[in-house]
Amino acid sequence: NTSPFVLFGGMNVLEDAGLASDVCAHFVEVTSRLGIPFVFKASFDKANRSSIGSFRGPGLSKGLEWLADIKTRFDVPVITDVHEPHQAAPVADVADILQLPAFLARQTDLVTALAGTGKPINVKKPQFLAPEEMRHIITKCRDSGNDRVMLCERGSCFGYNNLIVDMLGMDLMKNMGPVVFDATHALQRPGGRTDSADGRRSQAVVLARAGMAVGIAGLFIEAHPDPEAAKCDGPSALPLAALEPYLVQMQAVDRMVKGFAPLEIV
Amino acid sequence: NTSPFVLFGGMNVLEDAGLASDVCAHFVEVTSRLGIPFVFKASFDKANRSSIGSFRGPGLSKGLEWLADIKTRFDVPVITDVHEPHQAAPVADVADILQLPAFLARQTDLVTALAGTGKPINVKKPQFLAPEEMRHIITKCRDSGNDRVMLCERGSCFGYNNLIVDMLGMDLMKNMGPVVFDATHALQRPGGRTDSADGRRSQAVVLARAGMAVGIAGLFIEAHPDPEAAKCDGPSALPLAALEPYLVQMQAVDRMVKGFAPLEIV
Amino acid sequence: NTSPFVLFGGMNVLEDAGLASDVCAHFVEVTSRLGIPFVFKASFDKANRSSIGSFRGPGLSKGLEWLADIKTRFDVPVITDVHEPHQAAPVADVADILQLPAFLARQTDLVTALAGTGKPINVKKPQFLAPEEMRHIITKCRDSGNDRVMLCERGSCFGYNNLIVDMLGMDLMKNMGPVVFDATHALQRPGGRTDSADGRRSQAVVLARAGMAVGIAGLFIEAHPDPEAAKCDGPSALPLAALEPYLVQMQAVDRMVKGFAPLEIV
Amino acid sequence: NTSPFVLFGGMNVLEDAGLASDVCAHFVEVTSRLGIPFVFKASFDKANRSSIGSFRGPGLSKGLEWLADIKTRFDVPVITDVHEPHQAAPVADVADILQLPAFLARQTDLVTALAGTGKPINVKKPQFLAPEEMRHIITKCRDSGNDRVMLCERGSCFGYNNLIVDMLGMDLMKNMGPVVFDATHALQRPGGRTDSADGRRSQAVVLARAGMAVGIAGLFIEAHPDPEAAKCDGPSALPLAALEPYLVQMQAVDRMVKGFAPLEIV
Repeated sequence: NTSPFVLFGGMNVLEDAGLASDVCAHFVEVTSRLGIPFVFKASFDKANRSSIGSFRGPGLSKGLEWLADIKTRFDVPVITDVHEPHQAAPVADVADILQLPAFLARQTDLVTALAGTGKPINVKKPQFLAPEEMRHIITKCRDSGNDRVMLCERGSCFGYNNLIVDMLGMDLMKNMGPVVFDATHALQRPGGRTDSADGRRSQAVVLARAGMAVGIAGLFIEAHPDPEAAKCDGPSALPLAALEPYLVQMQAVDRMVKGFAPLEIV
Repeated sequence: NTSPFVLFGGMNVLEDAGLASDVCAHFVEVTSRLGIPFVFKASFDKANRSSIGSFRGPGLSKGLEWLADIKTRFDVPVITDVHEPHQAAPVADVADILQLPAFLARQTDLVTALAGTGKPINVKKPQFLAPEEMRHIITKCRDSGNDRVMLCERGSCFGYNNLIVDMLGMDLMKNMGPVVFDATHALQRPGGRTDSADGRRSQAVVLARAGMAVGIAGLFIEAHPDPEAAKCDGPSALPLAALEPYLVQMQAVDRMVKGFAPLEIV
Repeated sequence: NTSPFVLFGGMNVLEDAGLASDVCAHFVEVTSRLGIPFVFKASFDKANRSSIGSFRGPGLSKGLEWLADIKTRFDVPVITDVHEPHQAAPVADVADILQLPAFLARQTDLVTALAGTGKPINVKKPQFLAPEEMRHIITKCRDSGNDRVMLCERGSCFGYNNLIVDMLGMDLMKNMGPVVFDATHALQRPGGRTDSADGRRSQAVVLARAGMAVGIAGLFIEAHPDPEAAKCDGPSALPLAALEPYLVQMQAVDRMVKGFAPLEIV
Repeated sequence: NTSPFVLFGGMNVLEDAGLASDVCAHFVEVTSRLGIPFVFKASFDKANRSSIGSFRGPGLSKGLEWLADIKTRFDVPVITDVHEPHQAAPVADVADILQLPAFLARQTDLVTALAGTGKPINVKKPQFLAPEEMRHIITKCRDSGNDRVMLCERGSCFGYNNLIVDMLGMDLMKNMGPVVFDATHALQRPGGRTDSADGRRSQAVVLARAGMAVGIAGLFIEAHPDPEAAKCDGPSALPLAALEPYLVQMQAVDRMVKGFAPLEIV
């Protein structure tokens, strides 16, 4: 939480191989120019869409192929989320970091399957969980022999159909491990559209800046060349064209807060 | 939601075959005496305990054996929860009703696997979901050819480490299907103990009465002969010895509210 | 909390003397027929409307005149709310019970002014306060020499623009004194209309039944002959024509729950 | 919200004239050195303490004397909060800015009394109010002929006994007027101590930085030379000794975010 931040960036879901590659190319270009460590993120399956007819992605095998291809061609580490225990091993063959989805973060078999791969794990904090309870998930990983755990804030339930980011809670999690801020999913308005979540894309910059000002290990974002046409979570996605100016701000805030002289208040 | 309520009752987890049988025997005796339709509930696996060392249950095959045995011996229908898609078919061979766990209620593969069995499904409303959003889960089931869906209220996130039951939300769900009130899980205080949830057992009667007064299709409760010694969720469990006087109250309230002349307010 | 419930009923605001009288007449007629102890409620001033142009009422002196007149003509006790310390004494000359408004319930001068009159006080639980914190307000009254305090539940903040009634919290307050359930304000949706609160009038019966099932000392409701034309909180008001069938249900539930054999769960 | 931020700083309550003067002296020294526009804040009365025995302050007349003295000696503008309509005029004789307390922010008479003085008003957003509803309070002020209104975020109710700062809500309020962030009251844990609120002082820096990163017009803080000995809200107060390094950080973040090239996301 004190080194320059790592960017976990990419697309919500692997819409098609060409688009994923284009998105990664843009992320690589921008982060290289800015000198930001970069991990490419995309899901091979969206396992909990609001509607059964919603696009879910290419599935495990094709998705891993695409990710492996991107990884090789761009020479970037890759992160993706795992939804069932049996997926952990094949995903770990390709992905450098495994992500534990928020709604599933307490499913013991999934946690131990991920931990068993030995790969670092990015645990999304469930919207229904207090920050302090993340300790239990970390302990489950440790008890499975894996202590390479990152904690990812993506908002907490605030009444119905709303998420709120508790900056103090995110700060508390820094005592437990590296903290990553998922600054685009936190823009969601669950159930805000007829058959999917709405989002607050126009406030993407402000929310991410506030999170970076806390002083954290990583920033997680999803972008799309045309958010309105995105097949999942477009209302929360950063337009790809805004990526560079957006990251310029985040990098500046990150550098500044990590450069401050320590100030302990008791 | 207008007929006499059905009781879904039993134990949190199948601690051992003898205890499960004893608990069922007591439920059968009491519900027979009171004339309350009864479905036995117990989990073969607690898949999302706070700690990895917590008791999880006998597992799928032994658990189904025990449930099948109970079903035959007591001639009662049985409900149990399913955590992974591949479990749906074997569970449906034994169980009369399948339960979709709250945290997993949006996992499309699990929903369609349950729906595909043709058995009625009890959908636990996720603590993070607005009542209106339950429509999406019902639609997923219908699109999978199954419209025998019950909606089960078990409390909503209220800040950290607290659940609250929205009686108005439960009432709204009556427009979508039969509503079941899980009146003991709603007593939980998530993360309230060092390594597990706490509960408000002493308020079990009051909360259940309030829910019954709404006028619903079913009551869901977990009981234990010695809640302090229960292997899971004891702080929220009804002491088995209190079952009969508890149900006497619930039946009386249920009969009363369903006997009232209709009163529509516009 | 164990005797038959008292009804605190009337209008939101004293719209005009004639209407107030008509409303009271109907309440008196119905409660006499049903044998329900009745206290007439109406506000002389709505001091915290959303908009400055909203109707506020006749004000202190005219309002007290009207209330005094109603009190005499119908021979009923009267309750009304007090917004500033200097109003406490004149209000206490007319009203039998003083009401402490929710947003003002922590204003020490107002609390002590009310307590100083020696009259019983109905403390509306602020939407922002935990049930346990009501002890502080009771203590303030006691320290001012007045221990005739009732605690009134009217919903808690649940995210933005929503209220939720915590039946377990209401139950906890029974340990502190007589509990009254304001079953119509709890229907509010704050900020739900362009310039005022919206409400969930169509759910009035269900919510009140749930509250009565807890077993409480009093029910507080506001009714109106034509809720759509009410000058304040019409969306939450009970149509006056529904009063009798509504109270029939509440009385039945109240009698039933207070007639149950005690059932302590430890 | 685009100019360098103004600091509203001082003490929670005017404990005694000497201490208030010392605190102001330190604020003046530090803000002069840093070139931060400064307004001194202190309350003459804490009108809604949890307990009747809690320290309330010197009261209106002595408090205004002290504030007038501080204002003259240090040549700083002064802000203080007003609790009853009749206080507005005398307070406006001394204070340059009037503050509308959160719990009282919907009391129409108080709002119009403050507005009627012609002085700028700092409206504390009630913990129970949605950001959009602040428009109603602004409109009340405008309808009273005063449009010099600042909107002050101090946290929203999040379950019981907790406050959470909605950075997206604070951002929305920027469309309505200058936004001030009360970064120390937002640290409160209401009801967290036996007879008063607890606080999260050790997280003061992080929360304030996050708020400054939103890009706002003002920062509001309370400090104390010895927070443990403070007579009100010590658990949320900044230690005076930390003021300069704290402000150095806030000023740096403020300058940075206001220096960024505009980045509109649609």
